[in-house]
Order: sequence, then C-alpha cells, then structure tokens
Amino acid sequence: MKAVVLAAPGQIEVRTLPDPAPARDQVVVRVHACGICGSDLQLVDGTLAGAAYPFVPGHELAGEVVAVGADVADLRVGDRVAADPSLPCGTCAPCRRGAVNLCRRFGVIGASVDGGFAEYVALPARNAYVLPEQVSYAAGALLEPFACVVHGFQRLAPPAGSAFLVVGAGAIGLMLLELALRTAPAEVVAVERHAERRAVAERLGARAHATVAEALATRPEGFDCVVDATGVPAAVEEAFDTVAPGGRLLLFGVARASDRVRLAPYRIYRDEITVLGSMSVGHAFAPALELVAGGAFELERLVTHTVGLEGFAEAVELLRRGEALKTHVIPSLVDGSGAASAR
Amino acid sequence: MKAVVLAAPGQIEVRTLPDPAPARDQVVVRVHACGICGSDLQLVDGTLAGAAYPFVPGHELAGEVVAVGADVADLRVGDRVAADPSLPCGTCAPCRRGAVNLCRRFGVIGASVDGGFAEYVALPARNAYVLPEQVSYAAGALLEPFACVVHGFQRLAPPAGSAFLVVGAGAIGLMLLELALRTAPAEVVAVERHAERRAVAERLGARAHATVAEALATRPEGFDCVVDATGVPAAVEEAFDTVAPGGRLLLFGVARASDRVRLAPYRIYRDEITVLGSMSVGHAFAPALELVAGGAFELERLVTHTVGLEGFAEAVELLRRGEALKTHVIPSLVDGSGAASAR
Amino acid sequence: MKAVVLAAPGQIEVRTLPDPAPARDQVVVRVHACGICGSDLQLVDGTLAGAAYPFVPGHELAGEVVAVGADVADLRVGDRVAADPSLPCGTCAPCRRGAVNLCRRFGVIGASVDGGFAEYVALPARNAYVLPEQVSYAAGALLEPFACVVHGFQRLAPPAGSAFLVVGAGAIGLMLLELALRTAPAEVVAVERHAERRAVAERLGARAHATVAEALATRPEGFDCVVDATGVPAAVEEAFDTVAPGGRLLLFGVARASDRVRLAPYRIYRDEITVLGSMSVGHAFAPALELVAGGAFELERLVTHTVGLEGFAEAVELLRRGEALKTHVIPSLVDGSGAASAR
Amino acid sequence: MKAVVLAAPGQIEVRTLPDPAPARDQVVVRVHACGICGSDLQLVDGTLAGAAYPFVPGHELAGEVVAVGADVADLRVGDRVAADPSLPCGTCAPCRRGAVNLCRRFGVIGASVDGGFAEYVALPARNAYVLPEQVSYAAGALLEPFACVVHGFQRLAPPAGSAFLVVGAGAIGLMLLELALRTAPAEVVAVERHAERRAVAERLGARAHATVAEALATRPEGFDCVVDATGVPAAVEEAFDTVAPGGRLLLFGVARASDRVRLAPYRIYRDEITVLGSMSVGHAFAPALELVAGGAFELERLVTHTVGLEGFAEAVELLRRGEALKTHVIPSLVDGSGAASAR
Ligand SMILES: NC(=O)c1ccc[n+]([C@@H]2O[C@H](COP(=O)([O-])OP(=O)(O)OC[C@H]3O[C@@H](n4cnc5c(N)ncnc54)[C@H](OP(=O)(O)O)[C@@H]3O)[C@@H](O)[C@H]2O)c1
Ligand SMILES: NC(=O)c1ccc[n+]([C@@H]2O[C@H](COP(=O)([O-])OP(=O)(O)OC[C@H]3O[C@@H](n4cnc5c(N)ncnc54)[C@H](OP(=O)(O)O)[C@@H]3O)[C@@H](O)[C@H]2O)c1
Ligand SMILES: NC(=O)c1ccc[n+]([C@@H]2O[C@H](COP(=O)([O-])OP(=O)(O)OC[C@H]3O[C@@H](n4cnc5c(N)ncnc54)[C@H](OP(=O)(O)O)[C@@H]3O)[C@@H](O)[C@H]2O)c1
Ligand SMILES: NC(=O)c1ccc[n+]([C@@H]2O[C@H](COP(=O)([O-])OP(=O)(O)OC[C@H]3O[C@@H](n4cnc5c(N)ncnc54)[C@H](OP(=O)(O)O)[C@@H]3O)[C@@H](O)[C@H]2O)c1
Ligand SMILES: [Zn+2]
Ligand SMILES: [Zn+2]
Ligand SMILES: [Zn+2]
Ligand SMILES: [Zn+2]
Repeated sequence: MKAVVLAAPGQIEVRTLPDPAPARDQVVVRVHACGICGSDLQLVDGTLAGAAYPFVPGHELAGEVVAVGADVADLRVGDRVAADPSLPCGTCAPCRRGAVNLCRRFGVIGASVDGGFAEYVALPARNAYVLPEQVSYAAGALLEPFACVVHGFQRLAPPAGSAFLVVGAGAIGLMLLELALRTAPAEVVAVERHAERRAVAERLGARAHATVAEALATRPEGFDCVVDATGVPAAVEEAFDTVAPGGRLLLFGVARASDRVRLAPYRIYRDEITVLGSMSVGHAFAPALELVAGGAFELERLVTHTVGLEGFAEAVELLRRGEALKTHVIPSLVDGSGAASAR
Repeated sequence: MKAVVLAAPGQIEVRTLPDPAPARDQVVVRVHACGICGSDLQLVDGTLAGAAYPFVPGHELAGEVVAVGADVADLRVGDRVAADPSLPCGTCAPCRRGAVNLCRRFGVIGASVDGGFAEYVALPARNAYVLPEQVSYAAGALLEPFACVVHGFQRLAPPAGSAFLVVGAGAIGLMLLELALRTAPAEVVAVERHAERRAVAERLGARAHATVAEALATRPEGFDCVVDATGVPAAVEEAFDTVAPGGRLLLFGVARASDRVRLAPYRIYRDEITVLGSMSVGHAFAPALELVAGGAFELERLVTHTVGLEGFAEAVELLRRGEALKTHVIPSLVDGSGAASAR
Repeated sequence: MKAVVLAAPGQIEVRTLPDPAPARDQVVVRVHACGICGSDLQLVDGTLAGAAYPFVPGHELAGEVVAVGADVADLRVGDRVAADPSLPCGTCAPCRRGAVNLCRRFGVIGASVDGGFAEYVALPARNAYVLPEQVSYAAGALLEPFACVVHGFQRLAPPAGSAFLVVGAGAIGLMLLELALRTAPAEVVAVERHAERRAVAERLGARAHATVAEALATRPEGFDCVVDATGVPAAVEEAFDTVAPGGRLLLFGVARASDRVRLAPYRIYRDEITVLGSMSVGHAFAPALELVAGGAFELERLVTHTVGLEGFAEAVELLRRGEALKTHVIPSLVDGSGAASAR
Repeated sequence: MKAVVLAAPGQIEVRTLPDPAPARDQVVVRVHACGICGSDLQLVDGTLAGAAYPFVPGHELAGEVVAVGADVADLRVGDRVAADPSLPCGTCAPCRRGAVNLCRRFGVIGASVDGGFAEYVALPARNAYVLPEQVSYAAGALLEPFACVVHGFQRLAPPAGSAFLVVGAGAIGLMLLELALRTAPAEVVAVERHAERRAVAERLGARAHATVAEALATRPEGFDCVVDATGVPAAVEEAFDTVAPGGRLLLFGVARASDRVRLAPYRIYRDEITVLGSMSVGHAFAPALELVAGGAFELERLVTHTVGLEGFAEAVELLRRGEALKTHVIPSLVDGSGAASAR
C-alpha cells in the first residue's frame, strides 16, 4: 500500500509498505478520509513526545473495514467506521481510575503506532466505531477532534443559561462554538483575528469580535464559561480577565511545555474562578458520534481542502500558514501534482 | 383595585380591594399578565397546604412597577418586571444550606400572600426581575414555570449527547422538550396522549409517540435522561422502565402525597439508575430570563387562551378539561362575559 | 491443583485440576485468601446470571504471583497482589462511556472464568494490584467488597457534615459505616437486628439501633445520606422515609430482580430526594487500596472465620445462617474435617 | 458599652458606645469570644475594601442573646449563639444564583457594620446559629473560619482515597489539615516553615515538611488535592508543581490583588489540572456547626492567646509577628495592662 511516512523529524516521505494484516483483536480499515491537525505539525517537526519514527501519521480517520481479526465479534467487513486513536495502557494510576486520557504511557494511533495517512491501517476493534449511514466519511474523520471538544464540555459542565466566550476560531474553536450554541447558552461570543473565520463563527450563530477587549466591552460582567482555543499564553491571560464571578476558564488550546501564564490568585479566590484543562478524547467518542448522527452538527463544512497522499506535505504547509481550516487526506485521490483542492 | 379572591376552598370571587402600597423593601406591580397552572386548581379546591384564605392567587406574573418602597435601590417606577414568587424563610435548615426551594416554611406569592390575579400586587423588590425590552409581558409571565424547568435541568445535569424522553407534553412538558432540544441531545422524544400536543412537540423538533412502549421500541437500549411531566404514578412507572444504564429519571410532575410508585430496586442497583426530583424555581429564575432574553425560546406560543379577571373561573374550567395549554389572565381585558379568547 | 468447583447449580465439589498457566497478558497467583460473599450463595444456587458451570468460584482474592505472561511488564514473580475481578468487555455502550461496571457483557473472575477458591488462579495482569507490605493477604482479600463500598461513596458524594444512616450491619454495612465515619460526618447511625452486629457498629464509633423507627426518632429531621445494605424491599421502604430534604438514598444491597419497592413520588419531588444505585467496583479498587494502605481501616477484623478448600461447603452454610460476618478460604489450611475456625 | 473602634486606618481606640438595641429582625448578643484573623490586620491598615470607618471590627464571634427584635421567632434571650458575619445583598447576579459569597455588594459584620470586638453586638437573627451545649463559646467563635474551610472542601469535593497536601499550617492550614484527615484520605501532608506549627500538624495526624520540595520527594506522583493556605505567590507556584494528573489546586490563602502566579498552561491541559478558589463561608456555616457539635473536631486547641478589649492592639501585633495561632478577645476579661495570656 501507499502511505505517508515520517522517517525522522523533518522527513516526510510517501512510501510503499506491506498491506497490514489484522492481529486477533484488530480490524484493518481502508482509509477514506484522514484529517490533519496541529499535532501533526509537531510530529513533522519532532517536537511531540511519544512518536515512534519511522511511522505513518494520521489520527483523525474514517474508512471501511476490509479485514477482521479472529477474536473480533462486533465488526464485519464492509462496516463503515471512524477511529478513536487513543491507546491507554490500562494499568497506570490514571487508567485504573478511569482517566484513560491521562494515561502515563499514552499511545496514539498515528504517533506511537501507524495511523491513517495510508491506504490501510490496522487498529484494535475496540477503537473502531460504526458510522450510521447518514454520517459521511468526511464527518467520520472529524469525530476525533469533535470528541475532544465534547470531552472539553464534559469537563466544563456548563449549566443552562451560561454566557460563553471562545477565544480562537480555527477548526477547534468553531466546533467549540457550535457545541456552545447548542447547550442552551445565554449567549455565545467568539474572538478571532481573521475576518473570514469570524464570518464563519457568525454564520454558526455566534457574535464575533477581533479582540478580547471588544468582546468584554459587550458584557462587562464577564462570561460564565470561557474557552481558550489558541494555546497562546497572551490569549489565555486575556481570556482569564473575562471570567465572571463563579465562572470557569477551560484551557483547550495546547501551549508549549515551557510557556507560562500570569494569573491573579486574588481573583481566583475572591470570584471563585475555576481554571481547568481538557486533554484528548477521554470517553467522549460515543457521545460525539451520537451528536453527529442526530443531525444537528454539520462538521463537514469545516473541511476546506482535500488532498491525496502525495499532497500531505503541501497540506502541512497550508496548515502552517493558517490558510486551511481543516484539510482531509483522501488516499484514493490521484493527485500527481499534490495540489490541494479547496472546497 | 379589582382582584380575584379565593375566599375559601371552592369559592372564587372577583372583589374590589384597596390598592396595595409598598412596604419599605417592596414594589407594587401593575399586572399585565398572570398565568394559571395546575397548583391554582389545587388552591381553588383547597388541597394545597400553605394557602391563607381569603387571598388573591396568581404566581406566574409580569407587569410594570408603579410604586417603590423606601429601601428599594435597584428598581424604579416604569420598570417592566417578572416575579419569582418564592418566599423562603432564610433561617430553616434547607435555607441555610442554600436550598431555598426546600424551605420548611416556604411561602409563595399567590398562596401565602396575595398574588397576581389582580390589577396590582405588592411584592419584595428582590423577587422582581427586570425584563429586557425584547421580552414581552406574556413571556415574562411564563418565566416562573420555565424557571422551574431550568431548575429541573440543573438537577438533571444532562451531559452533551444524551438521549431524552419526556412523558407528558402539556405546557410544562413542552418547555422541558424545548430545553432538552437545546442541550446538545442525541435525540429528544415525547410521549403524550393528545394528538394536538404531540403535533406541538413535533413542531418544536422532537419525535412524539402516544405511548411509552412505542417510544421505547424506537430506542430499546433506553434513554439517558427521562423526565416525567405528568405526575401520574402509572406514567412514572413506565418511564422508569425506559431508563438506560447509568441514566436518570427526573420526577418533575407533582403526584398526590398519598401516591406510590413501584420500582425495581435491582435495576436501580444493577444499572446505577438515579431517580430524582425537582421542586420549584430554586436559583433558576435568572438563567431562565437569560435564556428567554437570548431569543432562542419562544415561550409565548404556549399561551393558547387569554381572559380578564372576570374570566378566571372559566379559565380554571378550561384547564381542568385539558383544553388550554396555558391561559393568561390579563387584568386590563374588559370581558364582561368572561369568555376566554383562544389564540 | 486443588480447587472448589461448582459443577452445576447446587453441586459443590473439591476437584484436582491442572495448574493454570499464564496467557501472554496474565499472571498466575497462588491464592492466600479468598472471601465468600452473598453472590457466591447465588452462584451455588444457580440464581445469578453469567456463570459458566462448571467453574471455580471466588472473586475476593489475594495471593502471590508465581508466573508471569510474556507481555506483562509491571508485575514479577513474588509480588503480593489482590485482584479486581471485573472483566468489562471494553466495547459496549457503557464501557465506551467509561462506565465499565455497567458493561452489557460483564465478566467476573470467579463466575464467568475460574476464580480464587483454588490453590492457583490465572488472571489478567491489569486486574492485579500490588499490595504494599503493611497490607496483609486477609486485608487484600477484603479489598474487592471494600472497593464496592468506596465506589458507592463515589456515587453518593457526601459533602462534609452529612448525617448518615446505614441499614444493615453485615460485613458490607460495617464497611459502609467505617467509611462514613471517616468522611467528616455530622453523625453516623446504624440499624441492624442482630445485637452482636450492633455491638460491632458501636465499637467502630457509630450509634446503633434495632429498627429504622428508633433511629429516626433520634433525628426527626432525617438523614442526608441513607444507605440500604440489606437488599430487602421492606428495609428500603423504611430507609426512604428517613431521608432529609435534599438528601440521598443509596441502594447498595442487592434485591431480587422481581422485587418492587413502593416509594412516594411526591416526596421525591417536594424534598428533592435522590435515589440511586451502586454496582460493583467501577474504578474504585485503587483508592480502596490507598485507603487500606494508609492504615485507617482495619478490615481484617471483619474476618470471623477461616476454612480450607474442603471447608467451602460449610462456609456457605455459615453465611446462609448469618453466623459469620466474613469467612475466608485459605487454600493452604489442611482441614480434613472442613471445620470452620472462628477467630 | 465598651468596644474596640477603628476610627480610621491605623487608628485603634477603645471607646464607650451606646448599647445597641435590636431592629425588628435582629438580636443583640453579649459577646463571649471574638477571634482576630488576617483580614482584621487589613482593616486596621485600611487595605481592605468595604470597611465603614469608624466601626467596630470583629467577625468571628460567639455569645449570648440578650435582646430579641419584634419579628424574631426562632431565638430567645439566653440562647448561646455564634454568628455567620456574611451580609449578602440578595439581589445582585451572584446572589440570585445562590452564590451569596460572591455577592457584588457583600457586607460583613465587623467591617461594613459593627462587629464583635465589643461587649454587645446587634445582628440579623438569620445570621445567628444556636450552639448546642457541648460547643463552647471558644469553639463557637472559631466557627466562622472553620466554615470557610468547610466551604473550601465543598469546592474541592475530594473523593475518598485522595492524597492531600496543605501548604501553610497557620490556624487556617491546621483546620484544613484536620478536615482533610477526616475525609477518608490516602494521606495528608503539611508544608510549613515553623517547626512548632509542623509539630501541631503532626499531632493532628499529618506528615509535615519544611518545604514543598521535601513533601513532593515523598510522593513523586503528586497529590490529588493541594491547598494553598498561605496566599503567598511563590508558595502557590510550588504547590502547583505538586498536583497529580487529574488533581486539583485550591487557592484558599488570600493574595494581594496585584500579585500574579506563573503557571504552565500545558500542564493544566495535559494533566487536566483544576485550579480553583474558595471565598468565605457560603452556605457552610450549618455543616461546620454540625461537625463541631459531633465532637470530632477540637478547634479550641487552636486558641493560643486570650485578651480583653484593651488588649486588642497588642493582639494585632502578636498576629503580625506570627506568634499567635489564634487570639480570642474576651470582652469580660479585665486586663488593665492589655497583656495577652498565652494558653
Ligand atoms: N485539548 C484538546 O484535546 C485538543 C484537541 C485538538 C486541538 N487542540 C488545540 O486547540 C487549539 C486550536 O486548534 P485549531 O486547529 O483550531 O488551531 P488554529 O487553526 O491555529 O486556530 C487558532 C485560531 O486562534 C487564532 N488566535 C490565536 N491567538 C489569538 C488571539 N490572541 N486572539 C484572537 N485569535 C487568536 C489564530 O489566529 P492566528 O492563526 O493568526 O494565530 C487561529 O485563527 C490548538 O492549540 C490545538 O493544539 C486541543
Ligand atoms: N417540579 C416543578 O417545579 C413543577 C412546576 C410546575 C408544574 N409541575 C408539574 O408538572 C406537571 C405537568 O404540568 P402541565 O401544566 O404541563 O400539566 P398538563 O397540562 O396536565 O400536562 C400533562 C400532560 O401529560 C399527559 N399525560 C398524563 N398521563 C400520561 C401518560 N401516561 N402517557 C402520556 N401522556 C400522559 C396529560 O394528558 P391527559 O390530560 O389526558 O391526562 C397531559 O397532556 C404537573 O404535574 C405539574 O404539577 C411541576
Ligand atoms: N452494590 C454492590 O456493589 C454490592 C457489593 C457487595 C455486596 N452487596 C450487597 O450488600 C448487601 C449486604 O451484604 P452483606 O454481606 O453485609 O450481607 P448480610 O451479611 O446479609 O448483612 C445484611 C444485614 O442486614 C440485616 N437486615 C436485613 N433486613 C434488615 C432490616 N429490615 N432492618 C435491620 N437489619 C436488617 C440482616 O439481618 P438478617 O440476617 O437477620 O436478615 C444482616 O445482618 C447484600 O445485599 C449484598 O448482596 C452489594
Ligand atoms: N478563603 C477564605 O475564605 C479564607 C478565610 C480565612 C483565611 N483565609 C486566608 O488563609 C490564609 C492562611 O490564614 P492563617 O490565619 O492560617 O495565616 P497564617 O497564620 O499567616 O499562616 C500561614 C502560614 O503559612 C506559612 N508559610 C507562608 N509561606 C510559606 C511557604 N512558602 N512554605 C511554607 N510555609 C509558608 C507562614 O509562615 P510565615 O509566617 O513564616 O510566613 C504561616 O505559618 C491567609 O491568606 C488568610 O487570609 C482565607
Ligand atoms: Zn495508562
Ligand atoms: Zn426556610
Ligand atoms: Zn462492556
Ligand atoms: Zn449580592
């Protein structure tokens, strides 16, 4: 099969590899769509721990089951599936508490083992979720980031009538906005620098501003639920200043390990502000799929570009330059040129 | 002023009473709309504890501030307001824990003191909430039952992706459905005997069935959040059977004190089902107002009938016969005949 | 090896079986102690679903690792361990939500696969928890029921200052009492018919009464956290009547599937009472072990009798007659007679 | 009556004032004990907002009811009471949500109105809690800070089996430790510079270290519940580094409004750490009283010094120098010299 291989940090190749065969508890999936996200950039750059170079990246994938291991009872060839890429160890302290996303030996399909930027991928049957027919492969390949968003809301636990502020309206911020708009909010406000992304946020039903200061001016009493979807320390600090008494600030964006944010402990005490994080999917893949299957979310509209496997390197550059909201690699696309086709 | 007076159980009169004057911490409100609900029937019948006959009923009210007591700082004449009718004592054990709705000496405007089926009503300033201009008096007079519904959801705390079943689609059931539809549900199903009410539920976006059995057949794995909005023991028992493992059954309907429901303790244990209740408004009036002000809810559509003060007795009969979803008494309506005008 | 085998319902045998060998992800444990509990009686009687006759019962076990499968990294021969017997499938809906104890295909060591009433048992390495040296094998074999109790408290989530009532002071009720006494309670009251068990409850620090009515008389305002530890419907109904406004009733005891309890829906509504269940260990084995390792709990004192494998049948009778609080089978005990030695 | 008066920032006087009379909803209390805490220092210095100079400070008070207003039903002359000093407005946004401690117009007995460093104090009946006879006035006067601690634990919501670290073992830190030790902890560790305070912590049952680094070395996997009881930014930053994955950091100490702490957003994300604050009593006075009445807490031992009204200025200096854990002003003490008597 053809597959994108990260041979080493900085080294993207498209190689021919042997077709994978399923282990007893695995299925093999023919990949129909696999999304690129920020952590893929870090894998390309070699700045993410836990990657097993050389390996096939790709953790936002959907496709069709083409082979089934001997012990697999719930799936059969032909099933349309999306994959939760999480591979918790099951025995570390967080795993034993049920906090699988905080696993001390966390593996990820597309980082610690081969992933979805390939014609085929082998993965544990328990990681594959059957897509009902109304859910497209494109939507299926968006379930992983959306499940992260749903997990974030499980952490946030916003009561009905909350006022929301989401800072950053990239693919993730837009999904956060879409979910916020559907959780009986008092209002939902986006902050985003790029006018076209603000326009998308507004189309979804949010109010949008270019700066946090502008957003706060429209609601001086502050927001009950504030979410950072940038990972930028300066944005987090500004976001903190907009939290209403009793409110919560969710750090959803991924900062660098060396970053620091400067927060006022007096406000955390006096206004009983809660600052919390959300990491990965946890147990949210199933509810994310329920939500998408229910028809209220139209995630596919976030896919602005599609490429074939040969287009992976170019897709990486599109993402780096902030030109694509979400690019899907479609292995069946024959794109000798590797040119991304904008949708 | 003119006012409806319950002189004694079974004795409805329209009397002329002295216009109320505000105590130091009170405002006087000219009533623009006041809704009738099931507990008013119980007050008419004399089957609700805590009523101070003779008194003016009416606890779902909105109107205009026409006088302000000496110590009132936040309100002024001309403010458009709706009232939270709750009068917790502030010193009993539940009040001191913050559970004001569980107050052991709970008073209610329109039961323990005079209420809103009158031209004017005096009430504590802290019970009056200013309506933003986009919220009509009709919507304002629906805030009290809607706040009960919001409080019920605070108790239920449904995570995103929950499947909902609401049994009973009267005014309350329909509000529960409307809120469920806006809390990122997997799906929302109504059970209701009356076809016209099922039609309203469907117009809101829910699926509707005539029996619980039919509803369950469409989702044999059960529902994560089940709400009884009938108060009928047989309905509660059927509802219990539809709860999915790990799910919750909210008893929102008000049963008689002597009623009993027969539940299987084994299922509560084995499937970790939670059965819980929701009583009155609690601290949910403000978020209810935020939700309505935000524009997503169109509560006024539930008002099927309006009458003047002279029409109160007839409105009571309409409600008893299940012909009205929600009737509003509009004191300024001149309705010599007392005929209810259907909308 | 020698092992107790339930050949079929009602048929207890002690057989010689081949010594088990570890699968790749398993360890083999030499059993030092294995407790008998109520569900073992149901397995003997054939009234519990999911048992795979003939099989070796025993799910409350501790012992020493004597062999390690090829893929096992965290355990080595000589480790002292206790076992969480839970075998969730990992792919059903509750498993995917993280509610492993509600698994639709729940397996249990000692019911669906061979368990601990044997000289040796093979079990997945992930189910084995290393015991620190201060935790005896006797305490280790009590970790499973204690973990159920800890899970029950995770469900109950009692705030500091809660008043507790526990109905039933068998081995389980006594553990519930011991944990309640250590969660900053206002007070802890036990209800238990047997005077000697009341005496144990009092020695732990609880107040004890023979009837629910007596207990309620001492606290007419009711209890914030009420736990049924009998599984008897009449006891559950009485327990329900003692719950204070805003309080919770935990059904910990296991009723028969056909049992029904009659509860007043009006009280669930008016007093916002929550009735909830707790099933098995969930993710509580690790915190249970932390608690016991910390030294505050002296679970071993609950072990009133010990027998060898030949004494299993007699131990079953002891339990049936309510004469033993907890009996441990110690496979190394040579007890030709099978006589239980009371401690 | 004689009373301590803060005439202006920096100006402590003992004056003779008219004896207070009760308003309709008030009681007058003869003060038996009133504790000094850090916020009194700020009131002396004029660095706390909301103080109404000249006024009588003192918000940790207990005494005997000597007069009762016309509308007061639940209290009578002779009742022994302690006071919750909170005076929320009841109508601001947080008050309406039930978050009375986050009131935007928060008043406090002993700051916005006259308090307990006086022979008598008038206060709303709803703020007075009757002490059962086994609770001394000394314990009663410690209920306010202890209720803050209980409220902090309501915010923290530690599950059974949590490992605790408390940084700072002043009067507050010691109360936090005492409560942590009674919430079924895995272990409880204190960090405190002063050896004598470490000794008190150890006497209570905690392990104690002089530095955070030492404490962390004993538990490298980190602590589930970390509480800062210093208000010192450097201590908060160190405390943050000790939080285990999935753990919580409670900021209980009161920093200056201008202080900033530098935290790693990556860790908040990756390890899903929650940072939260706790402010004042909230609804925790009643459970705090229940806990003390239950007999498990011996708060009086924290009272290291007692003085009369004339000794207030000296007590302030004792506190500033960190020589007293808790000083109680006992108005009946005749202390011409004002000398503090150490206990
Ligand atoms: N927690 C999780 O489980 C999880 C899962 C997936 C992704 N993530 C993280 O979520 C974050 C968002 O992902 P994404 O794919 O949406 O990234 P993205 O496409 O880079 O979107 C971020 C957006 O925020 C804007 N922005 C940055 N700083 C801003 C500021 N101060 N004010 C206003 N706008 C600002 C960016 O504009 P510029 O391009 O001009 O900077 C960009 O438009 C990333 O950090 C990602 O790693 C977290
Ligand atoms: N918890 C609170 O704070 C709170 C606040 C307000 C109201 N409530 C309660 O909420 C409940 C609903 O109020 P509402 O004003 O909406 O009452 P409603 O107009 O009587 O509506 C109840 C609806 O449920 C239907 N129904 C009854 N049993 C049914 C069954 N077994 N299967 C299907 N449908 C069934 C009724 O039909 P029929 O007319 O044919 O019986 C009716 O259409 C009442 O009990 C009320 O007291 C509670
Ligand atoms: N939820 C879970 O995960 C879980 C885990 C383990 C066990 N359990 C269940 O927990 C329950 C208790 O287990 P156990 O081993 O402690 O059982 P046990 O030894 O039978 O103890 C129950 C005690 O309650 C007493 N009792 C029964 N009805 C009473 C009443 N109305 N008033 C006062 N006392 C009454 C019994 O007395 P008599 O003997 O005279 O009836 C007995 O002393 C069982 O139902 C068991 O199946 C649940
Ligand atoms: N949240 C609330 O509702 C609430 C209520 C009451 C009080 N408080 C706050 O709680 C905090 C504690 O009150 P308190 O009366 O116990 O104060 P305290 O007597 O000053 O005690 C604080 C202790 O922490 C020690 N300490 C400071 N920095 C340390 C460090 N880096 N490492 C180790 N130990 C350190 C102090 O030692 P040194 O004396 O040497 O600095 C002192 O012994 C204060 O900030 C107070 O304002 C909050
Ligand atoms: Zn792990
Ligand atoms: Zn009350
Ligand atoms: Zn399962
Ligand atoms: Zn306020």
